[in-house]
Amino acid sequence: MPVQAIIFDAYGTLFDVYSIGALAERLFPGKGAAVAELWRDKQIEYTRLRTLSNTYKPFWEVTQDALVFTCRKLGLELTLDAQTQIMGQYAKLEAFPENLAVLKSLKAKGLKLAILSNGNPEMLDAVVQAAGMSDLFTQVLSVHTVKKFKTAPEAYQLGTDTLSVLAKDTLFVSSNCWDICGAAWFGYKTFWVNRSNAPLEELGITPHAEGRTLEDLARFVT
Amino acid sequence: MPVQAIIFDAYGTLFDVYSIGALAERLFPGKGAAVAELWRDKQIEYTRLRTLSNTYKPFWEVTQDALVFTCRKLGLELTLDAQTQIMGQYAKLEAFPENLAVLKSLKAKGLKLAILSNGNPEMLDAVVQAAGMSDLFTQVLSVHTVKKFKTAPEAYQLGTDTLSVLAKDTLFVSSNCWDICGAAWFGYKTFWVNRSNAPLEELGITPHAEGRTLEDLARFVT
Repeated sequence: MPVQAIIFDAYGTLFDVYSIGALAERLFPGKGAAVAELWRDKQIEYTRLRTLSNTYKPFWEVTQDALVFTCRKLGLELTLDAQTQIMGQYAKLEAFPENLAVLKSLKAKGLKLAILSNGNPEMLDAVVQAAGMSDLFTQVLSVHTVKKFKTAPEAYQLGTDTLSVLAKDTLFVSSNCWDICGAAWFGYKTFWVNRSNAPLEELGITPHAEGRTLEDLARFVT
Repeated sequence: MPVQAIIFDAYGTLFDVYSIGALAERLFPGKGAAVAELWRDKQIEYTRLRTLSNTYKPFWEVTQDALVFTCRKLGLELTLDAQTQIMGQYAKLEAFPENLAVLKSLKAKGLKLAILSNGNPEMLDAVVQAAGMSDLFTQVLSVHTVKKFKTAPEAYQLGTDTLSVLAKDTLFVSSNCWDICGAAWFGYKTFWVNRSNAPLEELGITPHAEGRTLEDLARFVT
């Protein structure tokens, strides 16, 4: 598919948010997976509620709020030390193993690459740098600029405005099916990195293409 | 607390959405609870995504989409017959047992009572009538009028606009903590009917009052 630019979601797509499950398991034996899953769900829920109600708060704070709720809901004591450890881990999430090579090959083709994320700029800078990806992206865009989280159209519009490309000439890549739907509703071409083999959301959208890892994306764009 | 009007959420607050778990269990043995829970979560998620992305669809259709997704996700075959049975049950959900008496007593005090729901008008008419509550409400308000689901401020504003009361003189009652937060952000006084003894959401809101059933609400308003 001929595109001029590729915009990537960050958390879950480039960076492995579930990798913190291992740390959570050490801190809360037997509950690591439950903490990681509920935390992620709550974090996303809070971004949506705050956008719907115009009560924006940076993603770092929303993420922290979601962690506090998660532990309260699961009956786990969240010490300040545990909170600091988990949030610290979140700040330097690992990239999925195939990503760096794929991103380099896409950039070598002359494509503009960008990140468009719910994360606030400080979080994104930290995680991109830790993954050694600083030189690969033309732009690292944060919804913090518009103070609306995805799937608000204003969030997706940051991509076309900043990269000076048309949505239809841009491929939006995300591991989150709801993010794919939001991007498609906005007008982007979409590639769903369906890492967990999830069923398609029943939202009337079919991604332009789908794969399991970024290597499938590389094959699709070639 | 002196208030002039009380606005109730419908699904989960007046009408027992989890009562369909029994039917789901008959249709999908061993999976009834999982179906009911995921269905409810997906239904709410889809309302939020469609509001964020300006792709409104009536609640009845969103509810049906969520059911289709739920069965696909859980690996259950949803026959047309099963779908019709479950959706039919949804159209005539039972009210919680204490509700009718409490609503009558509140109305007898001269308070304006209303419903403000994500449900579309046809759904609300059916469920209110089936519960014998048609004469109790001054207004049965549907977000369908503004084509934005809660927690969009436009949805909550239907109450003040239609009832001609100030938000601060109005008590908003919901079993959903996120709905309480949305209503409080809008400016309503709030009473959380915390039927499932859930933890407070970490959204910076504390309800003005909290109880387990509508009987606790009756005691609070007296």
